[in-house]
Amino acid sequence: MTEGSMDSKILLPEARIPKAWYNVIPDMPGPLEPVIHPGTLQPVTPDDLLPLFPMALIEQEVTTQRWIEIPEEVRDIYRLWRPSPLYRARRLERALGTPAKIYYKYEGGSPAGSHKPNTAVPQAYYNKVAGTRRIATETGAGQWGSSIALACQMFGLACTVYMVKVSFNQKPYRKSMMQLWGAEVLASPSERTAAGRGILAGDPESSGSLGIAISEAVEDAAGREDTRYALGSVLNHVCLHQTVIGLEAKEQLAIAGDYPDVVIGCHGGGSNFAGIAFPFVADKAAGKQLRIVAMEPTSCPTLTRGIYAFDYGDTAKMAPITRMYTLGHDFMPPGIHAGGLRYHGASPLVSQLVHAGVAEARAVPQTACFEAAVQFSRCEGIIPAPESSHAIRGAIDEALRAKEEGRERTILFCLSGHGHVDMAAYDAYFGGRLEDFDYPEAAIRESLAHLPKVTV
Amino acid sequence: MTEGSMDSKILLPEARIPKAWYNVIPDMPGPLEPVIHPGTLQPVTPDDLLPLFPMALIEQEVTTQRWIEIPEEVRDIYRLWRPSPLYRARRLERALGTPAKIYYKYEGGSPAGSHKPNTAVPQAYYNKVAGTRRIATETGAGQWGSSIALACQMFGLACTVYMVKVSFNQKPYRKSMMQLWGAEVLASPSERTAAGRGILAGDPESSGSLGIAISEAVEDAAGREDTRYALGSVLNHVCLHQTVIGLEAKEQLAIAGDYPDVVIGCHGGGSNFAGIAFPFVADKAAGKQLRIVAMEPTSCPTLTRGIYAFDYGDTAKMAPITRMYTLGHDFMPPGIHAGGLRYHGASPLVSQLVHAGVAEARAVPQTACFEAAVQFSRCEGIIPAPESSHAIRGAIDEALRAKEEGRERTILFCLSGHGHVDMAAYDAYFGGRLEDFDYPEAAIRESLAHLPKVTV
Repeated sequence: MTEGSMDSKILLPEARIPKAWYNVIPDMPGPLEPVIHPGTLQPVTPDDLLPLFPMALIEQEVTTQRWIEIPEEVRDIYRLWRPSPLYRARRLERALGTPAKIYYKYEGGSPAGSHKPNTAVPQAYYNKVAGTRRIATETGAGQWGSSIALACQMFGLACTVYMVKVSFNQKPYRKSMMQLWGAEVLASPSERTAAGRGILAGDPESSGSLGIAISEAVEDAAGREDTRYALGSVLNHVCLHQTVIGLEAKEQLAIAGDYPDVVIGCHGGGSNFAGIAFPFVADKAAGKQLRIVAMEPTSCPTLTRGIYAFDYGDTAKMAPITRMYTLGHDFMPPGIHAGGLRYHGASPLVSQLVHAGVAEARAVPQTACFEAAVQFSRCEGIIPAPESSHAIRGAIDEALRAKEEGRERTILFCLSGHGHVDMAAYDAYFGGRLEDFDYPEAAIRESLAHLPKVTV
Repeated sequence: MTEGSMDSKILLPEARIPKAWYNVIPDMPGPLEPVIHPGTLQPVTPDDLLPLFPMALIEQEVTTQRWIEIPEEVRDIYRLWRPSPLYRARRLERALGTPAKIYYKYEGGSPAGSHKPNTAVPQAYYNKVAGTRRIATETGAGQWGSSIALACQMFGLACTVYMVKVSFNQKPYRKSMMQLWGAEVLASPSERTAAGRGILAGDPESSGSLGIAISEAVEDAAGREDTRYALGSVLNHVCLHQTVIGLEAKEQLAIAGDYPDVVIGCHGGGSNFAGIAFPFVADKAAGKQLRIVAMEPTSCPTLTRGIYAFDYGDTAKMAPITRMYTLGHDFMPPGIHAGGLRYHGASPLVSQLVHAGVAEARAVPQTACFEAAVQFSRCEGIIPAPESSHAIRGAIDEALRAKEEGRERTILFCLSGHGHVDMAAYDAYFGGRLEDFDYPEAAIRESLAHLPKVTV
């Protein structure tokens, strides 16, 4: 921002796409918790995971190296949309009348419209190098499915996406996006897998669930030599890949001569939050003073009302057990419009940081988030995805508090994606059809009664 | 592109947003043709237009100044997404095996996802300065309506959009976008205007048309002191504002050490084509050798099968008569998915350039365009809007011809918008539900029989 200090955005040249991801593991407040096999209830070994993931990704789950080199082949695809811009929300600041400076890192410029390709691309790459010919995965509303379809297309891998049937039927646009990028998309439950056939035998009209779709994708990958599985959030290697977001943001803020007092991300499985926040965890571990805030929906309040315990990653109890904040693996959040934030658990790394007090968490109701998104969009133009609106709510609240206190404050948040594919949610908001939902305590206690008994 | 000559994109800092628009009028191959009043069939005067437009925009219709300063207030909003990136489509080049270099200027990064805000913002600005309190306009599928809603929001103007009823009902997402940016959206025909009431009296179930919506917006604006009208294409001042696209592209190509042999844009009303092409018309007028190609759909082949004649701008014969390529004002193109290219006429400036041989035109069927869009997206990631796919078809065909001829060639095209709001069209394409339509000669002759008798 040397020329024109009133610039709206800070851009970096492609040469400044990070050359390494930042691995938070060595800077964690304690040792990693073990990952537990869902069948044996004993710690998993790398060999247990090999049918599902290539060794390079399994190693990234546990490595204590602080920096992991980004392969040139991955950086070369990142160039299609990275470095992403860092914006200063000057018009929003003026509208709020706040002394705070609000910066946001915008990830909606990727071909899929969100941050998800940041990890889809390296996952496809490492699979390609390991000889994988085909990826099987699941998707809910389709953000992840479209991102992995794009990445597979770039590396010439086949891709099959098990898409939750209700979304397959009601949200055909993300399905078209996956097909455009060459993926096969199946409505889940499907006839392709034993898991799917079992569900259909019991209920031919089943509209599916993410848990069922995960089971199908895992079965598909485990059963074919040429196929592996891919996941778009939660796992350590996913969080690792997303750190390009925060690394770039730090460099861009340095160009602006600034540093955040508070870093804010929305939180579902944890990948976007990790992306913006982890590089600042490093600074905090080194003594810097700043706050790191995860924003989640009150209707799926994993970090704020769940407990920190060992639990299954999926409803069907096929995924590994990890120690994380959880509402219980059979917790059923209501259908909120920020589909990407409807997960009963959380990234184990994010969970550990929240548990240790390095990061904090806040839950907000969806109408307050849409209100923030509308105010943001009327100032800054960009239409946020419903998921991203949670981070905006957090940022606006911080800016209003700064105004109340009459203090300067530098706020950084991540705008994880644009909302052009989610206008139906805005339609519901403007039509007064959105309800806020506060999960009853008894229901959470009920689902928390079914945690596995792990003794490690 | 000094650092890393394999960069995918060339970015400019905000200080390099053009400080002036390029006005093609002084570089036209002949004098401007008069604009004719639809009632009197005599040339219009500026005073005739004052109920509809502020004087600054009326002046921009006719000025022979080559450079028109861009107000700082407009540049300040351009900063939210401009300068837009110029990409080198290296992956597409490799996939085609062409010796050609393919560059594309990408306008999909604006808040509305297309180039339309480039003119919506200055139109709102000049209205604000002139004391206008409210804008009335029409929109078909909603690209223009959402862009002017955004621009009005930025300058605190009220905005009413008459949206063709069939789109209002079938494409609620663009409607939500307009509401998000604070506009009032009415299904047209509406009860608000005499024009609308008249149509509804005859046919209460009328699904509307762009012609009817124009009539309603014009009536609304003409009848209220505080309100003026705005149009998203065709007019000279609209083309003028869009030249920021080509001006930036020229500067970015210069950074890459390149200059195009051929410049390609899609063509509907002409605004996107003018935006990328006009700054190169200046060079051609000054003796540079290059080709300038407008790509239009075979289902609405205005430039390739229409005639160069005086005709009404709208079906209802309320809009001014201009000399342009036209298929006749009562020509009804079939419902192709590139809704933005369904106009019976063309920008008078573009028409004059094509008529004089400065620019050339080519028509392509929609399935060939979607095929090109899919090939492009599988290489470059970005999903093009159906309108933009026409320019991509043109660019790929040029690149394949270069390969056949074994010659280098530098191709520049404009990717006018992203297709995330248009996935239904891709869905139809993949589902085999898209038909190519070649308009029968007799039908064109029929609609051309109704041109007004203008003798100037």
